[in-house]
Amino acid sequence: MQDLRVNGERLWNSLMEMAQFGLTAKGGCNRLAATELDGKARDLFVSWCEACGCEVSFDCFGNIFARRAGKNNELPAVATGSHLDTQPTGGKFDGVFGVLAGVEVLRTLHEHNIETETPMEFTVWTNEEGSRFQPAMQGSGVYVGRFDLETELNKTDVNGIRLKDELEKIGYLGEAKPGSRHFGAFFETHIEQGPILEDQDKTIGVVRLGQGIRWYNVTVKGRESHSGTTPMYLRNDAMVASAKIMAEVEALAHRYENGLGTVGFVQVYPNSRNVIPGEVTFSVDLRNPNADVLKEMDEVFQSFCAEVASERNIDISVDHFWYFAPVEFSASDDVKKAAEALGYSNMDIYAGAGHDACYMADIVPTGMIFTPCENGISHNEIENTSPEECEAGANVLLHTMLEASRRIATEQQQTLCESAS
Amino acid sequence: MQDLRVNGERLWNSLMEMAQFGLTAKGGCNRLAATELDGKARDLFVSWCEACGCEVSFDCFGNIFARRAGKNNELPAVATGSHLDTQPTGGKFDGVFGVLAGVEVLRTLHEHNIETETPMEFTVWTNEEGSRFQPAMQGSGVYVGRFDLETELNKTDVNGIRLKDELEKIGYLGEAKPGSRHFGAFFETHIEQGPILEDQDKTIGVVRLGQGIRWYNVTVKGRESHSGTTPMYLRNDAMVASAKIMAEVEALAHRYENGLGTVGFVQVYPNSRNVIPGEVTFSVDLRNPNADVLKEMDEVFQSFCAEVASERNIDISVDHFWYFAPVEFSASDDVKKAAEALGYSNMDIYAGAGHDACYMADIVPTGMIFTPCENGISHNEIENTSPEECEAGANVLLHTMLEASRRIATEQQQTLCESAS
Repeated sequence: MQDLRVNGERLWNSLMEMAQFGLTAKGGCNRLAATELDGKARDLFVSWCEACGCEVSFDCFGNIFARRAGKNNELPAVATGSHLDTQPTGGKFDGVFGVLAGVEVLRTLHEHNIETETPMEFTVWTNEEGSRFQPAMQGSGVYVGRFDLETELNKTDVNGIRLKDELEKIGYLGEAKPGSRHFGAFFETHIEQGPILEDQDKTIGVVRLGQGIRWYNVTVKGRESHSGTTPMYLRNDAMVASAKIMAEVEALAHRYENGLGTVGFVQVYPNSRNVIPGEVTFSVDLRNPNADVLKEMDEVFQSFCAEVASERNIDISVDHFWYFAPVEFSASDDVKKAAEALGYSNMDIYAGAGHDACYMADIVPTGMIFTPCENGISHNEIENTSPEECEAGANVLLHTMLEASRRIATEQQQTLCESAS
Repeated sequence: MQDLRVNGERLWNSLMEMAQFGLTAKGGCNRLAATELDGKARDLFVSWCEACGCEVSFDCFGNIFARRAGKNNELPAVATGSHLDTQPTGGKFDGVFGVLAGVEVLRTLHEHNIETETPMEFTVWTNEEGSRFQPAMQGSGVYVGRFDLETELNKTDVNGIRLKDELEKIGYLGEAKPGSRHFGAFFETHIEQGPILEDQDKTIGVVRLGQGIRWYNVTVKGRESHSGTTPMYLRNDAMVASAKIMAEVEALAHRYENGLGTVGFVQVYPNSRNVIPGEVTFSVDLRNPNADVLKEMDEVFQSFCAEVASERNIDISVDHFWYFAPVEFSASDDVKKAAEALGYSNMDIYAGAGHDACYMADIVPTGMIFTPCENGISHNEIENTSPEECEAGANVLLHTMLEASRRIATEQQQTLCESAS
């Protein structure tokens, strides 16, 4: 069993085959959630799973579950999966690799006639990207109960088309209530979408945490006036006050270990060359894997804004409208063991972006496996990785799932013995 | 003669009457250059001047000259004027006050049957605002030879309508070549369009200089990447690099006497909350009344940009695309004398914005008279001033023109005597 390996070439070919649904001229993918293309991609996934003897079902939010029976089918299943939908100018790997790494694990188990301790489930989550329907990670969010089922089914796209109707149209509006599967562990393989593994020359990232996120809208209201006739001492320049805060967002992130700080969106009014800006609105995105540190970053940031407002006698309002608490991946030791056993160079890492696994961690021990992606680029048609890197990730997924399955069976056995004694 | 005063009430009423052409719901004015409304405003000006016995003509760029004969009509005329066109959401005073202060001077001379030493001319310059046709200060710029006549006549508005055709349509396409008047001095009265006189509680600003201006487009090219997955040490954040420069633009302006520095326009790409900006373009506007100081500001600014580029290993390009050299108003002593003689509180000031007088200074001794405007607000429908402030400005214009007329006659006399002796 320790010598078992996936077929890297088959995995790569499957990735390329799946990419045909929505392939763009630049080699990326445009396969928005619950479109006809998404339906075709799902059908292909289902056919591959059924070819390996799985029983396939889907819940009433379109989340798909392909189940492979194990030795003891009363035991909770070890599950894996990700998503098949893409950004409108997305790549061929984001999400899809996680789904097809699962398919490759399934095929490997199937062709070697391996009977696992527990059942295994291979999943696809509806609308992870949040491009066509908001929010992102919608299917997994509904599954774990973060979002209300009916509310989300009734969400419409920019053309007013309802998600529920689209799921029905592509044939993936099931009857099962989300959240009703019996899982003992969940694992998601994903390209890193960042540059760290490449920079550190590591094959595998053992994802220990999903970092915490705090999002803000900052509005600075100064006084609009003529750039040529207003002396410096009579100005109330909303742009310079904003620039001071922007520089501090970076400096602040540097002062805290693993801190991130970004101003990605800026809007200036009236945005005219010879008018001192009267109002500037900008976004602030602070992240840290440690909740306490992120709280401190929040306090330092907000008090810096207050200082700038007071020093410059300018109106600054900070709307802290979203907090996502850090997520602990409690099944990450299974990933670590597998990576080590396989001899892949690896490092502990945390997930910078949101993933279905971040929500799954609410209800089941969860782990994530990261693999490098070229120049850290994702959400882009030029997103890229290599067959070897995909193969390594799928091998780690295979052995992680086997390890988790054994662990669950053993733990179950111990519990039974303890209750018998 | 020293007791001669304008009629403030008549001036205010004329301002309100003129404002009817293009009056907006918010009490401002929308009277774009060479429109039918501009034609009506010009007609009213012409009728007022003819009622006072002036001979009115206009050149082939639509600049209007109303001439009141003096004792010696061989002497160069003392001229005044400004513009009647407004911004699309402009006020009732910008430009118009300068024209109607001239009309009020004319009426005052006329009703008191005063024969001045030299002729007096009352002018209206075509398209000072630059809103409908670019550039700004077009009529005076053509008059002094800064711009080519034919090129400017063929300029079109956003609907492709040609300025020359519009001037013809409103009846102001004359035959005289621009630049052919015989002027000995030019004066322009204008609301300050800034907050200094109000802040310093002065009635009159004696404008000594039109400040120098340097305009730049700065483009910072970093690397677009995910705000959640890119560690600080691997970022190339175009926004923070820009913010550093923006803060320096302000700091730099503070370090130099009379320095001004403004970032009014900012464009961020891709401008998305969770993407580190890959490219930021912004404007920089540096001003100083002293050409040498402004040159030094330019050098310090550009080397600061180079430092940021080098420190952050980011691509920063600075396009210094426009330089407007400081203008000296050599006839400003006439203004000072008049303000002092009238007992108005006054201060030396410089023009922060562009005015027709800035171009007229190329070819004739020129002076400007500033009056306060409420909260320094201009280019806005709520632009405001008071009847008393307008009256004071027109009184200063009256005595400035009389003083200049006497001075020119005396100088001429001295020249004749010297050449005779």
